[in-house]
Amino acid sequence: MNFKRSDKRKFDELRKIKFTRDYLQDAEGSVLVEVGKTKVICSVSVEYRLPQFLRAEKKNQGWLTAEYDMLPRSANKRIVRDRIHGKIKGRSSEIQRLIGRSLRAVTDLTEFPERTIYIDCDVIQADGGTRTASINGAFIALYDAFTKMKEKGQINEFPITNFIGAISVGIVEDEILLDLAFDEDLIADIDMNIVKDDKGNYIEIQGTSERNTFSDKQLQKLLKVAKKGISEIIDLQKNLLFGDIKTK
Amino acid sequence: MNFKRSDKRKFDELRKIKFTRDYLQDAEGSVLVEVGKTKVICSVSVEYRLPQFLRAEKKNQGWLTAEYDMLPRSANKRIVRDRIHGKIKGRSSEIQRLIGRSLRAVTDLTEFPERTIYIDCDVIQADGGTRTASINGAFIALYDAFTKMKEKGQINEFPITNFIGAISVGIVEDEILLDLAFDEDLIADIDMNIVKDDKGNYIEIQGTSERNTFSDKQLQKLLKVAKKGISEIIDLQKNLLFGDIKTK
Amino acid sequence: MNFKRSDKRKFDELRKIKFTRDYLQDAEGSVLVEVGKTKVICSVSVEYRLPQFLRAEKKNQGWLTAEYDMLPRSANKRIVRDRIHGKIKGRSSEIQRLIGRSLRAVTDLTEFPERTIYIDCDVIQADGGTRTASINGAFIALYDAFTKMKEKGQINEFPITNFIGAISVGIVEDEILLDLAFDEDLIADIDMNIVKDDKGNYIEIQGTSERNTFSDKQLQKLLKVAKKGISEIIDLQKNLLFGDIKTK
Amino acid sequence: MNFKRSDKRKFDELRKIKFTRDYLQDAEGSVLVEVGKTKVICSVSVEYRLPQFLRAEKKNQGWLTAEYDMLPRSANKRIVRDRIHGKIKGRSSEIQRLIGRSLRAVTDLTEFPERTIYIDCDVIQADGGTRTASINGAFIALYDAFTKMKEKGQINEFPITNFIGAISVGIVEDEILLDLAFDEDLIADIDMNIVKDDKGNYIEIQGTSERNTFSDKQLQKLLKVAKKGISEIIDLQKNLLFGDIKTK
Amino acid sequence: MNFKRSDKRKFDELRKIKFTRDYLQDAEGSVLVEVGKTKVICSVSVEYRLPQFLRAEKKNQGWLTAEYDMLPRSANKRIVRDRIHGKIKGRSSEIQRLIGRSLRAVTDLTEFPERTIYIDCDVIQADGGTRTASINGAFIALYDAFTKMKEKGQINEFPITNFIGAISVGIVEDEILLDLAFDEDLIADIDMNIVKDDKGNYIEIQGTSERNTFSDKQLQKLLKVAKKGISEIIDLQKNLLFGDIKTK
Amino acid sequence: MNFKRSDKRKFDELRKIKFTRDYLQDAEGSVLVEVGKTKVICSVSVEYRLPQFLRAEKKNQGWLTAEYDMLPRSANKRIVRDRIHGKIKGRSSEIQRLIGRSLRAVTDLTEFPERTIYIDCDVIQADGGTRTASINGAFIALYDAFTKMKEKGQINEFPITNFIGAISVGIVEDEILLDLAFDEDLIADIDMNIVKDDKGNYIEIQGTSERNTFSDKQLQKLLKVAKKGISEIIDLQKNLLFGDIKTK
Repeated sequence: MNFKRSDKRKFDELRKIKFTRDYLQDAEGSVLVEVGKTKVICSVSVEYRLPQFLRAEKKNQGWLTAEYDMLPRSANKRIVRDRIHGKIKGRSSEIQRLIGRSLRAVTDLTEFPERTIYIDCDVIQADGGTRTASINGAFIALYDAFTKMKEKGQINEFPITNFIGAISVGIVEDEILLDLAFDEDLIADIDMNIVKDDKGNYIEIQGTSERNTFSDKQLQKLLKVAKKGISEIIDLQKNLLFGDIKTK
Repeated sequence: MNFKRSDKRKFDELRKIKFTRDYLQDAEGSVLVEVGKTKVICSVSVEYRLPQFLRAEKKNQGWLTAEYDMLPRSANKRIVRDRIHGKIKGRSSEIQRLIGRSLRAVTDLTEFPERTIYIDCDVIQADGGTRTASINGAFIALYDAFTKMKEKGQINEFPITNFIGAISVGIVEDEILLDLAFDEDLIADIDMNIVKDDKGNYIEIQGTSERNTFSDKQLQKLLKVAKKGISEIIDLQKNLLFGDIKTK
Repeated sequence: MNFKRSDKRKFDELRKIKFTRDYLQDAEGSVLVEVGKTKVICSVSVEYRLPQFLRAEKKNQGWLTAEYDMLPRSANKRIVRDRIHGKIKGRSSEIQRLIGRSLRAVTDLTEFPERTIYIDCDVIQADGGTRTASINGAFIALYDAFTKMKEKGQINEFPITNFIGAISVGIVEDEILLDLAFDEDLIADIDMNIVKDDKGNYIEIQGTSERNTFSDKQLQKLLKVAKKGISEIIDLQKNLLFGDIKTK
Repeated sequence: MNFKRSDKRKFDELRKIKFTRDYLQDAEGSVLVEVGKTKVICSVSVEYRLPQFLRAEKKNQGWLTAEYDMLPRSANKRIVRDRIHGKIKGRSSEIQRLIGRSLRAVTDLTEFPERTIYIDCDVIQADGGTRTASINGAFIALYDAFTKMKEKGQINEFPITNFIGAISVGIVEDEILLDLAFDEDLIADIDMNIVKDDKGNYIEIQGTSERNTFSDKQLQKLLKVAKKGISEIIDLQKNLLFGDIKTK
Repeated sequence: MNFKRSDKRKFDELRKIKFTRDYLQDAEGSVLVEVGKTKVICSVSVEYRLPQFLRAEKKNQGWLTAEYDMLPRSANKRIVRDRIHGKIKGRSSEIQRLIGRSLRAVTDLTEFPERTIYIDCDVIQADGGTRTASINGAFIALYDAFTKMKEKGQINEFPITNFIGAISVGIVEDEILLDLAFDEDLIADIDMNIVKDDKGNYIEIQGTSERNTFSDKQLQKLLKVAKKGISEIIDLQKNLLFGDIKTK
Repeated sequence: MNFKRSDKRKFDELRKIKFTRDYLQDAEGSVLVEVGKTKVICSVSVEYRLPQFLRAEKKNQGWLTAEYDMLPRSANKRIVRDRIHGKIKGRSSEIQRLIGRSLRAVTDLTEFPERTIYIDCDVIQADGGTRTASINGAFIALYDAFTKMKEKGQINEFPITNFIGAISVGIVEDEILLDLAFDEDLIADIDMNIVKDDKGNYIEIQGTSERNTFSDKQLQKLLKVAKKGISEIIDLQKNLLFGDIKTK
């Protein structure tokens, strides 16, 4: 048991999280979320239009979708922009689908018929955990956007049905780690991203082991550490939004 | 408890699986895998080239990557071909990344340096479970390809390190279902795809709940049913390849 | 006169043709056509929409169009998918235009106004003659689709005006060959594809000689052998559809 | 027999053809070819590079390829540029493949190893017959380019093996027409493009009948009229290049 | 002061300009403009449609936009067509935006509501100054198109508000040059394109110095020489259109 | 003379400029530049590779190029990402070419042979003047990157040859304005971007008047106000980098 985290954190300790609300003057909602050195701008845009597949179905609901991208120099090597090849990277596609599904799971789409909500998550600096930071930041931005829409009478009921928190867990040298930084992610045998609501129920589990498999026993430990992390994140979010709830 | 499966299966019962080996005359390995009405052609191609990122790293290893697509009329509505828009659908991208990661997890890439193995999974008919059928079919095709390569002296050691099995589980009307068909997938609250090796360890867990969340208790049940299904699939595969192992 | 066909066929002999009707459960019509080792899935899809140029003309008719593609490992070398470059290969474009024109030539488009019929021809295994196999298979699939549409009252009159048959002929070592397999196509001086109706009239002639030119006398011989082959194919099709016509 | 050609030509009469050689100052060879109102710029460019498939085969030969396009306002309606959608129109693809094959059929590619010759055919004004005008114009431009290359010692032997001529024939109101103008093409039942060499042998036959089929007897008449037209074109070309051969 | 222009022109002398009006039979207006060896086809097309951004604003006006491209062999090296990569070159994009802005500056868009005017500038041969030649040629083509539209009653008032002239100036070996040819452009320290109206007011100034900077004094000289050139061009245009105005 | 600036500035007064250096941990140089509410991240990346055209010329020099983009919600309406259409917007293309040319004009490319320097300018929030803010910010980032490269011995001589400053000027209601904010840009008759070095010489002049033309007298006033602004910016930059020069 010689592995140490480079930032001295305990194995089940979150990095410092900071939400800067209303980061962009024009967006309906926007947050700069910082998790350690990871920085993501999450913005919410509301448009009066629906995707083709919903128009065809003529259901009386709106839609919520997410896009994820990284600035060229958010990483240690410069990333070629997707527009050069005209394709979205497979990884970005996978991540933005995760963000969209997660937020739709806690949003009542029937509360904003005829409208599409775009969640844009743009990574300014990447140091691990950009997809979970995106979900956590986007949730606050979405909450703020709905608050404004409610104040302006653009919606009748507040569409958020639950709080949501997302975190990564992993296994490095047989240790179960919470909230992996980039240097940890690079050497992790297992990498898992978990999204849960504030009732402790699961919304997404994405566990991947390219380097090594993991046993059922390890899975249970990973889920337990994730539970702790998500619970702390949701407390933080509630504290931020309501101001009177103490984090543990 | 009124829900019945349209094909009369028990909740924890697999659909009939059929592997037609050497389905294509030219591929290094190829399988037509049929799971109920789902049909996927899995083919293996070996080329003497490496992706850019590996050439840069100059590691002494090969690469294995997967591509997934659906024929236009494999589904109940005609699907527009990706080449029309010049983009890979987000769902296809997500699935082919899953297939590639899963097979790399049981393959020793250092056994075929300088070479890239392409796994092509093309869905001829889709009735649910195409991604897990792809993994199961591709595994057999890959096994066959390596066998031929070994016979021809193109590799020294057999690169497969473990057997692999993949299955979907889900929750429909509070019932835990194994191996969802399309009509079940459509109404499922939860949809989970699990990939494990023959030692019972996890390779991938992908659980998604756009419609409803799931509790830890439900998760444990899902994992248990998946375990049973994967175990049966791996038995089937071993029986197919070695001919003398009995399935339960 | 030392040239022998590798499959022992006579120079003016067709390969075995097999049509598996209703190959796909969801398509309005579908056929797996096998010609020797060549295998093509032909499916028919009907949609309530018209291409832009027809909407502009406001004619009271429908449209029929074809798409052709090859699975990556249908050939002896793996073919890169068109979606990677976002372009349709020139050869595919040429072939699908030929299939579309040929079928439109025997279809009364005014019988299904407001609708577009998509013919998808996907080559599973290529051993020469994929374009003519596509036309022959697509004709049966289209016939079946119209039969169903008539039964359901979606059309008033049966839109097929003539039977259609397609075949390739070529010159190899001065021999006139019918129905070239891939190994013959590779060494052929001349390659010609001919489409005719059941009255013996021409619908398409596509003759190409990249390696060698051909005289008028050779052309007449090519046309004569093609006539024989197409006549046999149309007999086969009628036998398949009506069951009481004997092939020669 | 009431049909009259709008420009008073006899049914088997060519339109006036004009070749302006060295039309572009920089190209290795270039021709502005005018056939009636149809105008096409054909240019020849020689580059020291080979396409991927030839480099792989390591044959000791060069390559010749053609590209075809129409200026946006060469037609009566403005044509959207291919670059907008990033795709080559199916029709352009078909035509440029025809031009390339036809010219390769009379060119000895082994005379210019390591080099690719690009033939660019750009339609300035389209009034029917642009593909055959392109072949005829490109032949002269190619002849001129090879002449210059020979003079400069860039090739040892002159690579042209035969003269080539191309023309369209068609059937309008039961009349066999030579060299169809746009207004004739629009109402033609049959449209056929024929390419032959100066020995009277065929290089390409492309006959299409979307509106009506054609009998063997009509085919023979079409071929006969085409023969007359191509013969006149090749006489014109020889006269232009050698100056001492009289056209009929 | 040893620099001499290769075509013996004085430093402040224009090349010979030739406008061939109605160059294309189908376009609403069209001009082949020749400036020395530079040749550009400018055509005007009118369509009953508006770009998305104008439809959204619901203003009662039309739109005018320009597209610029070069034929592959208009330059001394063959240029790869934009459709190959599916992207418009940055330089072309910059130039067509300049052409569009310049012509909109002298056109009253409210005179042709609901319509978009496309200006297509295609360079047949490039010998410097293609962007200014395009503006000058497009102006005449546009003038002719509006004249025809007025005659046909398609517009009430003539939408041209001012004459427009465009020219390049530059500094080569400390000499201020008017109307740079390609060989001069290649060695110029400074390259400036200026567009003015017939009242002497500026519409566009685009000055670029990749090789060397320029002082305010040099700028004033450049502007003065440009003024002379543009004045001569506008005189030419007026003479061409009205026939009774003398050029200096 | 009733026009007032919404932020109370004098007509020839700059907005507050703030440079946050080393904004990104991984980039060779990086600056967050803020001009009023406009925010742009400028990063510098150095790669050992050269563009195709330079490799062909085999000159002994490096290259410097710029890319410009806006985050989707940097503006008051959400901007669709370029990757969706696979094309770079014309405006972005124009701006990034301007940034690249301007910085190359003050950089000695022969000091870093074999290397390409990428300048990425990503607009986080747009309130007018993003292209000039990009140039000013990128200059500082580039300066910092070269300083580090010099310290590490990666270059011998410092490649910056001059300081550079960029600013916009315009005419609103006949007033000459310095440094236009978005609300001013929207109503400006004239919009001009000027780039100069610290000796007062011009590098770029880009003046555009879609709405109204401008006289020579107005041009002179615009140039004068720009001179004042650029001088102040360069003082700021020198102060920032050397710390001992006072801004006025």
